[in-house]
Amino acid sequence: MRTIDWNDESKSVVMIDQTLLPVELNVIECKNLASLCEAIRSLRVRGAPALAAAGGFGMALAVTLSSADTMEKLLNDLKVAASTLIATRPTAVNLAWAVKRVLKATEDSYDLESIKDIVIFEAIRIADEDVEINKAIGKYGQKLLDDGDTVMTHCNAGRMACVDWGTALGVIRSAVEKGKEINVIACETRPLNQGGRITTWELMQDNIPVKLITDSMSGHVMRHGMVDKMIVGADRITQDVVFNKIGTYTHSIVAREHEIPFYVAAPVSTFDPNGWEDTVTIEQRDADELRYIGDVQIAPKNVDVYNPAFDATPMENITALITEKGIFEPPVLIDEILA
Amino acid sequence: MRTIDWNDESKSVVMIDQTLLPVELNVIECKNLASLCEAIRSLRVRGAPALAAAGGFGMALAVTLSSADTMEKLLNDLKVAASTLIATRPTAVNLAWAVKRVLKATEDSYDLESIKDIVIFEAIRIADEDVEINKAIGKYGQKLLDDGDTVMTHCNAGRMACVDWGTALGVIRSAVEKGKEINVIACETRPLNQGGRITTWELMQDNIPVKLITDSMSGHVMRHGMVDKMIVGADRITQDVVFNKIGTYTHSIVAREHEIPFYVAAPVSTFDPNGWEDTVTIEQRDADELRYIGDVQIAPKNVDVYNPAFDATPMENITALITEKGIFEPPVLIDEILA
Repeated sequence: MRTIDWNDESKSVVMIDQTLLPVELNVIECKNLASLCEAIRSLRVRGAPALAAAGGFGMALAVTLSSADTMEKLLNDLKVAASTLIATRPTAVNLAWAVKRVLKATEDSYDLESIKDIVIFEAIRIADEDVEINKAIGKYGQKLLDDGDTVMTHCNAGRMACVDWGTALGVIRSAVEKGKEINVIACETRPLNQGGRITTWELMQDNIPVKLITDSMSGHVMRHGMVDKMIVGADRITQDVVFNKIGTYTHSIVAREHEIPFYVAAPVSTFDPNGWEDTVTIEQRDADELRYIGDVQIAPKNVDVYNPAFDATPMENITALITEKGIFEPPVLIDEILA
Repeated sequence: MRTIDWNDESKSVVMIDQTLLPVELNVIECKNLASLCEAIRSLRVRGAPALAAAGGFGMALAVTLSSADTMEKLLNDLKVAASTLIATRPTAVNLAWAVKRVLKATEDSYDLESIKDIVIFEAIRIADEDVEINKAIGKYGQKLLDDGDTVMTHCNAGRMACVDWGTALGVIRSAVEKGKEINVIACETRPLNQGGRITTWELMQDNIPVKLITDSMSGHVMRHGMVDKMIVGADRITQDVVFNKIGTYTHSIVAREHEIPFYVAAPVSTFDPNGWEDTVTIEQRDADELRYIGDVQIAPKNVDVYNPAFDATPMENITALITEKGIFEPPVLIDEILA
């Protein structure tokens, strides 16, 4: 099944609850905006492209549940839903992008019913397009991987971060589909262990060999020649930096030190052509993420914690961006790529 | 109390069980070599200098429990105990150093009773000296810290890694004792979280301000000017590299990138003058350390794992070594320091 999808019969959003992986594969159903927003905030669904789908489907939920009896009221309900959805995760640009795209699509509507149809149609199209885009990213990106390569990745930019296939892991999947033998090293990605829980699980499902390491081992494994290339995803790409899961910047420095190519695979919906590093707010997450794992206490209860969800990697640390429009080496002119 | 000590009444080794920190402060008593070796292997006692004390006290246990009735038999029992102790942790040189020092001290003995006295005396002296050495390291090292500095550290090179005071954290304690205001950033240090569990706890006990981060945040916090200096301990220092907790090498690269001084604080017993990087075996630890935290599963049960306990940081990444004999900038001539 897809990571996240619209169930047109029950008018609900269905998704794999990623917080339970790899222990349990549980599908949950969000029947209203509150439960979808909770799922986004709790990272039951996460990953920039999957959040775009979640944003679109959130608008579909809103339009389905609205009791508005005029176009004006309905459009207002959608705007309120849009703000609520965008506020769940402030850094990821794709969520806002999808929500705005759905809103924009309603501009052509002429009556109440057509708005409902358009919103749902557009939300489904965003999800379908994501799969196509991932395949295109994979088609370009796989050319960068050689038979026998070991590729390191951080966090999860795989099927579970998207609707299907994946960005960084999509590139690896496309290379494997071409008959190349690829080994993966997955960094566990503290504090929420998306690498250890989700990337490993996804790749093992596909029988792609994967080895799990702690995040701080990246220097050691690179120094010992165990890594040929590194590929990560992205949460937002501005003119100057790539925002991605905290730790990405550290890996980029270590990769450059060892002359290992460092690739970022992301759809162009991740681009923020008006953004610069210092215009973006980095989400700060709960201190308890570093104090507990499940019920297990791993630090003093009241210890002071710094827990940004993302960091910024300057373009000069990146060998190339892999997108559905091709491969681009920095300096990247985002406006030209988007044109 | 000291981290580890000899109880002369019950003829046992008493220590704080560090695997239970910070949830529980539990003191355990090892009455035989098997329970002491288990405590070392399970990291109930860890940290290079504390392992030296553990090695010495292990010999004290062996001499106390031996039923040998001749000097020859007793010395043989001690040699067997020495091998058993050294085999518990292959990378840390201090453990072997202490065990050998105790063995060497018996060379002057003339009868059965004097061997017993000498072994116990020497073991206690090793522990006492460790405290004196830590204070000397602190006395030199504190000169490198300025009032208002934020110092980042990895793993635990504190009181709990030693008999008392600490090496890296001892330098910080000595600076605070001199009236300097020092803030600490502690990296949690996966997979066993010694930074999150022990360094934070130790510093909070002393009211030294400490902030906890994940290991991969080091680049991000340095890029944002949150770190003035980095200090770590060491498990073994050869002519060419410093072996320390896995992740140290990655931090050293990131520190150099941001022109942040990177100090290693360690007693000269950590020096291995005959060793080179490629002569040292890096201990590989159990895969389950990355698959579980307590009872909580954080990765697929059967995922392939790479789990070295240490990495090697080349001397050129190190600003200075802080020892009880003074501060030494690479290139370091270990033979001259030891002379």
